[in-house]
Amino acid sequence: MITSTANPQVKNLQQLMKKSSARKEQGVFLAEGVKMLLEAPPERIRKIYVSKSLYEEKGQAFFPHADLEILDDRVYRAASDTKTPQGVLCLMERFHYTLVDLTKRPDPFLIILENLQDPGNLGTIIRTAEGAGADGIILSSDSVDIYNPKTIRATMGSVYRVPFFYADDLKEILRELKARGVRSYAAHLDGASAYDKADYRQGCAFLIGNEGNGLTTDLSACADRLIRIPMHGKLESLNASVAAAILMYEACHQRDNG
Amino acid sequence: MITSTANPQVKNLQQLMKKSSARKEQGVFLAEGVKMLLEAPPERIRKIYVSKSLYEEKGQAFFPHADLEILDDRVYRAASDTKTPQGVLCLMERFHYTLVDLTKRPDPFLIILENLQDPGNLGTIIRTAEGAGADGIILSSDSVDIYNPKTIRATMGSVYRVPFFYADDLKEILRELKARGVRSYAAHLDGASAYDKADYRQGCAFLIGNEGNGLTTDLSACADRLIRIPMHGKLESLNASVAAAILMYEACHQRDNG
Repeated sequence: MITSTANPQVKNLQQLMKKSSARKEQGVFLAEGVKMLLEAPPERIRKIYVSKSLYEEKGQAFFPHADLEILDDRVYRAASDTKTPQGVLCLMERFHYTLVDLTKRPDPFLIILENLQDPGNLGTIIRTAEGAGADGIILSSDSVDIYNPKTIRATMGSVYRVPFFYADDLKEILRELKARGVRSYAAHLDGASAYDKADYRQGCAFLIGNEGNGLTTDLSACADRLIRIPMHGKLESLNASVAAAILMYEACHQRDNG
Repeated sequence: MITSTANPQVKNLQQLMKKSSARKEQGVFLAEGVKMLLEAPPERIRKIYVSKSLYEEKGQAFFPHADLEILDDRVYRAASDTKTPQGVLCLMERFHYTLVDLTKRPDPFLIILENLQDPGNLGTIIRTAEGAGADGIILSSDSVDIYNPKTIRATMGSVYRVPFFYADDLKEILRELKARGVRSYAAHLDGASAYDKADYRQGCAFLIGNEGNGLTTDLSACADRLIRIPMHGKLESLNASVAAAILMYEACHQRDNG
């Protein structure tokens, strides 16, 4: 059992919680909580860190993992970043998807995020993408780190199941998608047509922009069509994860109902 | 100009930021940022607190308010709860709506929240409600405080325009709504019909439950109909603000398209 916060593994967990660069260098990420442990792909688990009290509560059989480390409760709290630590942290290997993984099915249904910044919004979008039956998510390289602990938590496990990758050049991605018959729809306040007037049963990709500024003019110009979510009142825009959800569920509705 | 963090007004701002009880006792709330200032109903503004640097940047004419207090930048930062303080805090009087305010239009379109706990989710729901053209929001008394600074921020100004009130007994509310011809739809994993198979052009109210546990069996049983948002993958549920958005925009779609 680890009983000191000065333990090098504990120091490393703290770094991995805080620093995107540390996670990247080591090729790992952290997922906290019993739900995240139970849904984790076994082949990706590198090590499990469990608090003494959760270990005693659940019993040895609950943790059949080869590489398990028990932490004194005080030490566990020091390693976790949450206000109410959940007692188990999984050290996981990162995913490595490519466009091929996201376009395996005919008529793929994709989400493209440009410069999204809020970790909670990103996690919520991944969660909604699984629910709506999307094939994957492509992020611009200046978007928030998908392995941020807040994002991981907000996915509620979907991060294990929805493929994603970061791309340096989203315009190049749009060209490749077009070549594969996937049409791109940019959520835009100036969109000429309402979002529910297009047909998303063919291959489709929805472009969602930054929380404050929306999509860049440059990228919007490359989309096949600008679509608009109607807005009542004096509101200027919807939350990015809400806009994404409305579009994804319109596609889901059309696809499920043929 | 206030130059000390020991100033009683600054101490009070800190209390109002942190404590729901302090806000309630004084009948006020705080809204931070230039956007929240510009959209604030003038008759509700009790006092404006502005940082020295924002005051100098915008100039005197930008702040025509009778009761204005300038704060040293360091003092302003101590009063604000945000990581990147926006330089202006509005001390506002609270709203007092009743069911009458929310049912002025024929065929009202309402949202009912039971034990919602996340301030960001609540703010996002208010914002989406304005966008979708909803008439108002009713919250159970055990829900998070709508005047929480995180909620206010997430509304992006919608809190000024979307009527709401807290109710001790949501079942009584459902009975009153029924008497006024408003049908209630509970978002429920066991819903018999898909959300897009009902007609929301008549008076309608959507019930959304707690983030972790959903709606109570007790309240769901009082709804006119349980509706389900279809879910692909292994996902158990959607984020509460996403589920609310999907339902609200389905109602918006039906109402806008006749």
